Amino acid sequence: MNNFDYENRTRIIFGKDKQKMIGQLIKPYADKILFHYGGESIKQSGLYEEVVASLSAAGVEVIELGGVKPNPRLSMVYEGIRLCREHRIHFVLAVGGGSVIDSAKAIALGVPYDGDVWDYYLTKKQPDQVLDLAAILTLPATGSESSDSSVLSNEEHQLKMGFSSDKIRPLFSIMNPELFYTLPENQVANGVCDMMSHILERYFTNTTHTDVTDGLCESTLKVIMKNAEILRKDSRNYDAWAEIAFAGTIAHNGLLGLGRAQDWACHKMEHELSAIYDVAHGAGLAVMTPSWMRYVNQTNRNMFLQFAVNVMGVEASFREPEAIVKEGIDKLERFFVSLGLPVTLSELGIDESNFERMAKKATWFTEDKETPIGGFQKLNWRDIVEIYRLAK
Amino acid sequence: MNNFDYENRTRIIFGKDKQKMIGQLIKPYADKILFHYGGESIKQSGLYEEVVASLSAAGVEVIELGGVKPNPRLSMVYEGIRLCREHRIHFVLAVGGGSVIDSAKAIALGVPYDGDVWDYYLTKKQPDQVLDLAAILTLPATGSESSDSSVLSNEEHQLKMGFSSDKIRPLFSIMNPELFYTLPENQVANGVCDMMSHILERYFTNTTHTDVTDGLCESTLKVIMKNAEILRKDSRNYDAWAEIAFAGTIAHNGLLGLGRAQDWACHKMEHELSAIYDVAHGAGLAVMTPSWMRYVNQTNRNMFLQFAVNVMGVEASFREPEAIVKEGIDKLERFFVSLGLPVTLSELGIDESNFERMAKKATWFTEDKETPIGGFQKLNWRDIVEIYRLAK
Repeated sequence: MNNFDYENRTRIIFGKDKQKMIGQLIKPYADKILFHYGGESIKQSGLYEEVVASLSAAGVEVIELGGVKPNPRLSMVYEGIRLCREHRIHFVLAVGGGSVIDSAKAIALGVPYDGDVWDYYLTKKQPDQVLDLAAILTLPATGSESSDSSVLSNEEHQLKMGFSSDKIRPLFSIMNPELFYTLPENQVANGVCDMMSHILERYFTNTTHTDVTDGLCESTLKVIMKNAEILRKDSRNYDAWAEIAFAGTIAHNGLLGLGRAQDWACHKMEHELSAIYDVAHGAGLAVMTPSWMRYVNQTNRNMFLQFAVNVMGVEASFREPEAIVKEGIDKLERFFVSLGLPVTLSELGIDESNFERMAKKATWFTEDKETPIGGFQKLNWRDIVEIYRLAK
Repeated sequence: MNNFDYENRTRIIFGKDKQKMIGQLIKPYADKILFHYGGESIKQSGLYEEVVASLSAAGVEVIELGGVKPNPRLSMVYEGIRLCREHRIHFVLAVGGGSVIDSAKAIALGVPYDGDVWDYYLTKKQPDQVLDLAAILTLPATGSESSDSSVLSNEEHQLKMGFSSDKIRPLFSIMNPELFYTLPENQVANGVCDMMSHILERYFTNTTHTDVTDGLCESTLKVIMKNAEILRKDSRNYDAWAEIAFAGTIAHNGLLGLGRAQDWACHKMEHELSAIYDVAHGAGLAVMTPSWMRYVNQTNRNMFLQFAVNVMGVEASFREPEAIVKEGIDKLERFFVSLGLPVTLSELGIDESNFERMAKKATWFTEDKETPIGGFQKLNWRDIVEIYRLAK
């Protein structure tokens, strides 16, 4: 096990009707907030009204900024920063999924900073201070409700970049499984794939003696798969949503990766897809993950045997390891297919034309330098092109 | 799954040599601290010198209070409170196991409080403020390094009581597996039993749909048992200590009990033993837990079947459930025996003479009122006497 240093300040308030507490929860921190959200769904569901009523009852003044889109844009973040400065706001409330929360995190980073907030994402500069931040989750997927990270798209440069700091963990996040009942099936599937990927990116490691986190990763992956299957048949199943939402938070709050080298190549390769083609993150991950596994599994076959047996439920045997590894990967891919997820780039409408460009962007390739990606197996741009090809 | 509300501010700093950071970690919070510890072992091991040197290098002034004993005493806490007030100290550093940390938590509670700190333990009164608090762990067992609880013994009244509040979670805790190499075998075994009990008290529940935490509990219990067996043969195995220490923190940081009713009858019954006989907490739990299981398993046999199969590795079968439940409990008891732990009260030198008195104390029994204990199965004092008898 490697050394680690971990803290996670986010308070999780979980259960029915908890969104109605939002006013009283915020009031000790702020009299005026930026209420940041996405599209019309929170108005159709009544959540918007509930939030506004609770804030109003608590005497919290609201400045609104709606319209966040999947793969949240830097331009919207600039608008949020401008609004906060104009209205002297020190608290951002995100009501939405990961895109809204990530956008809110960027606003919280940008307001007290004299320079361009994009600096944080490009140079991984660490902030001195950020605005206070909270979330009401409407789509369990990215884990952003208690994670230290934010992913933002710079539409002008077709870049999608992540930034991490303990300071951008929300102060608190509200999770009510009932808020997820009306999510479209493809968003549920994308979310499930994203949270599984957050675990898999941590799980595949060459660090030895990682029993505690191996076990936590494996059991949480199995819970996600079991309950995702329940939701396919019954989208209003409270208990299955509770398991999925709780698992999605654990998947990305940092705990499951403690003391082990992590990978994150699939996320990086997917970010290149999203930056150019604007595909859904979860769908891109469903395509990239099995292909990545097929490309790298020889690096540490035992880790893939453990995955096949302990996570995917392949019967253990020691005489045909290659077949077990293959069956583990195939089963994961079949699971994604069963959720209606794409597993090839062609299903996403992506051809070979940008493979080399995306691969070189992923590794910051220039004539004199390249930064390989991946903690499990180092991948240069040529490796990444091969993986994109495997995913055709 | 039940609703829940969870936050845990404790930063965990884990790995080799991390105790040498203590000065620089404390300096931003305090220029003067109470350095609270137990017996001579930290002087023999050199840890005392390392801590003093690091604090001195950082310019942190130290007032010492050593001598905390297992089952920490209220009288020592009063002395710590007096010292902090006299020297205007606002930060307590605990260097030790759970007893030292629990004692430090009580001091942190008591200093800013006008009344008697024992009030908190008796009436569960909630504090407005507490002193800042940090720990360097020398014995993984109680999970106090990131838990919200403190257990204290009032020697005058032969009472052992617990108190919980998020405000007594340490700001940070340092865990270096190398600090555990020289622990006596019986303390290791007691610690292992205590951390397993922290999980079992949460695991046995009648709450349904608790997949996430079921999985976390089961995998963490298995990690503890596996690595405890390694340590029996090799007490200086870094990796096994790392797993045990990390698991011990997870066992009691609150995560594994979220969204599920918990039990805690074994802890309560054991506290009565410790209060009168001053037995080691882990040893008392090793005696009480299998007897409790034998007494209550009919309440929810499926939960005990799951325990037997998923935790204790009993082969699953559906035709002889009673035998599987029995084998699960027997295997746990045999595991305790294999660690050298007692599994009967007579091994602890305890006879029947105080069974009724302890059972009545556990339920606060008076002629007109009694508060049964246990979330899994409610136990009145007569039940508790029966469980003590089973443990003879």
